[in-house]
Amino acid sequence: MGMTMTQKILAAHAGLESVKAGQLIMADLDLVLGNDITSPVAIHEIEKMKVEGVFHKDKIALVMDHFAPNKDIKSAQHCKCVREFACKNEITNYFDVGQMGIEHALLPEQGLTVAGDVIIGADSHTCTYGALGAFSTGVGSTDMAAGMATGQAWFKVPSAIKFVLKNKPAKWVSGKDIILHIIGMIGVDGALYRSMEFVGDGIAYLSMDDRFTIANMAIEAGGKNGIFPVDDLTREYMKEHSKRPFVEYEADEDAEYDEEYVIDLSQLKPTVAFPHLPENTRTIDEVGDVTIDQVVIGSCTNGRMDDLRIAADILRGKKVAKNVRTIVIPATQKIYLQAMEEGLLKDFIEAGAIVSTPTCGPCLGGYMGVLAENERCVSTTNRNFVGRMGHVDSEVYLASPAVAAASAITGKISGPDEL
Amino acid sequence: MGMTMTQKILAAHAGLESVKAGQLIMADLDLVLGNDITSPVAIHEIEKMKVEGVFHKDKIALVMDHFAPNKDIKSAQHCKCVREFACKNEITNYFDVGQMGIEHALLPEQGLTVAGDVIIGADSHTCTYGALGAFSTGVGSTDMAAGMATGQAWFKVPSAIKFVLKNKPAKWVSGKDIILHIIGMIGVDGALYRSMEFVGDGIAYLSMDDRFTIANMAIEAGGKNGIFPVDDLTREYMKEHSKRPFVEYEADEDAEYDEEYVIDLSQLKPTVAFPHLPENTRTIDEVGDVTIDQVVIGSCTNGRMDDLRIAADILRGKKVAKNVRTIVIPATQKIYLQAMEEGLLKDFIEAGAIVSTPTCGPCLGGYMGVLAENERCVSTTNRNFVGRMGHVDSEVYLASPAVAAASAITGKISGPDEL
Repeated sequence: MGMTMTQKILAAHAGLESVKAGQLIMADLDLVLGNDITSPVAIHEIEKMKVEGVFHKDKIALVMDHFAPNKDIKSAQHCKCVREFACKNEITNYFDVGQMGIEHALLPEQGLTVAGDVIIGADSHTCTYGALGAFSTGVGSTDMAAGMATGQAWFKVPSAIKFVLKNKPAKWVSGKDIILHIIGMIGVDGALYRSMEFVGDGIAYLSMDDRFTIANMAIEAGGKNGIFPVDDLTREYMKEHSKRPFVEYEADEDAEYDEEYVIDLSQLKPTVAFPHLPENTRTIDEVGDVTIDQVVIGSCTNGRMDDLRIAADILRGKKVAKNVRTIVIPATQKIYLQAMEEGLLKDFIEAGAIVSTPTCGPCLGGYMGVLAENERCVSTTNRNFVGRMGHVDSEVYLASPAVAAASAITGKISGPDEL
Repeated sequence: MGMTMTQKILAAHAGLESVKAGQLIMADLDLVLGNDITSPVAIHEIEKMKVEGVFHKDKIALVMDHFAPNKDIKSAQHCKCVREFACKNEITNYFDVGQMGIEHALLPEQGLTVAGDVIIGADSHTCTYGALGAFSTGVGSTDMAAGMATGQAWFKVPSAIKFVLKNKPAKWVSGKDIILHIIGMIGVDGALYRSMEFVGDGIAYLSMDDRFTIANMAIEAGGKNGIFPVDDLTREYMKEHSKRPFVEYEADEDAEYDEEYVIDLSQLKPTVAFPHLPENTRTIDEVGDVTIDQVVIGSCTNGRMDDLRIAADILRGKKVAKNVRTIVIPATQKIYLQAMEEGLLKDFIEAGAIVSTPTCGPCLGGYMGVLAENERCVSTTNRNFVGRMGHVDSEVYLASPAVAAASAITGKISGPDEL
């Protein structure tokens, strides 16, 4: 029996010729990631282990992004703890305010993640790097600690679901709409502990940023990871951003999949996830009349150049509705600079939006746009759980940058075709 | 006996031919200001009064700036309370995320404050508008409520101290250095409940932004207000920003002053206020070796165009020190846009600083750069009290944008001449 793409990467990193679903393995890690919320816990754990330093100072990435620039004393103390650990252990890839960005946009941009890697991160959206053909998954802080100490992690080899993406998406249908459609179809536990392997001719129509968005939200269907095959676009991206060699894996032809879905991308419409689960999806023509108080365009899901370009195209020369606080957050300093040079930030400001420094802030109700009671937000982020962005009686509607920008203008959930 | 400039404005607004120090008066208000922290308290008070609406919907300004974009659920609730009040009372000058800025930079820019006005604001730095030749002072939320209801406020007419500013300041000596020098000279209670009236030929060398900075920090010497005479530069500023008529008042020649200080601006040096009071000043050549963790350039004191231009001139083509988080905060959306168009924001980002959306955030330990234990920050803000920007064991050093920018590069408190 053949192996899936994920299984082949795991086998190679476990020093095994083959693995099968359900098998427990120890795999070598190419990168261990933590942020300002999860790293302090991992650091306390690693200190208890009394090990001599970390396994590899270049293979650990510590990114201060969730509550940085520090939102309160507690977050300041957390960052300080990580900063001191990074300094003591000479961690090469420590990213603080100024070198910073949202971890899952930053690491590929910095060339730290490439095809064939096995990556763990103490953050659920670590699955993002599957867009590059890596096996990448979120873990708890204790596993992060063990990973930093030993350079290995144990895994139960996942089975897989195959998603065959066919044809070209219609205008305004982005990676976000595709993944929301999938989550709506299979549910938030539809891929529980399984690989979501994306294949098909439709992938050729998806930009790298679309693919990052799709892989990023694999966890919202419960997936262990999401993964894309490597094509010319992937290679080009990696060569532009990284000096690391990469290894391309392909699923065996006789690989076994638990399920297979064929999705005709040309039939999809802009899609919105209603409160309070990413699976509560409606297409834009089904949303009805939902007035909103805030729009957030950003996050590890949708804060990249493609996202900002689409939003700026829609907002350019228009004004956001008077009562809609519109918050745009470029995901990294590099994206911020590029967006500024392309004139996008000017478009946002002139439309009455504000532009924040890179941060995860509002996505998890941290800061930079927390919601009050009964407020509604259209957000390009990844989770709309009860109270996720603030008050327990607030509502989050997940959507693409195009829908978010259009909604900012009309003051209610709208597709760009309604403008 | 003649009247000071402040006394003449107060007399006119009280409908009296003359007033004298110590007299209790009721004065008509041209503007009543509140922010997202102080307005909710005032709104609760005004609701208790059971009055019919507010005295004048165009003469109230409500600015969401301290913890907006909302830093937590509580601040979100506060903003919501103010937003609903503004909507119900059709307040013309309600400023939310996107229309926003830091109140004391925003109101003059929006033309809401002009010479001859009497202005109260539930924020201690309301004294800023004295730069335009207005009487302007901070009040509590209860006085703000009464002001919104009646359009009047009572005052005890202040006596005054005269500050004669002479000659041209040396390079790198800005309004911030002048006011820090003055506070260092007279102490944080040196002008308690008195007007600080600035006169002299040296004023001609001060930009409007320098004057705003000086008037802004009058309260840090305990002053009831700080006030500048109106000259061509003031008139030009008001004509550019406001359609409101303005009235110029001049102190009588025989006005009485409690004290008079003559300050030779040409002799001043860049000045830093050490922890934990603005009066703990040292000139830049006296600061010694003080390593720092963070730099903040912004606030109602120093977040204007002049400030950003000076900081960018110093940072351009250089890099901030690796361990110094450098946070630049344009004070208003308009300033943000202007700074972007002049290429200043690019200079900041390329130097490794971050650029925040307008907010008071870090100045009062709100968010966007709160300090951890034992951390030190050079800040262009106005207060360095114990715990002001975060942990009770953190330290704030107040300085000009030039010193702040130079310090960001060297990683310790430095003057721009040390680069």
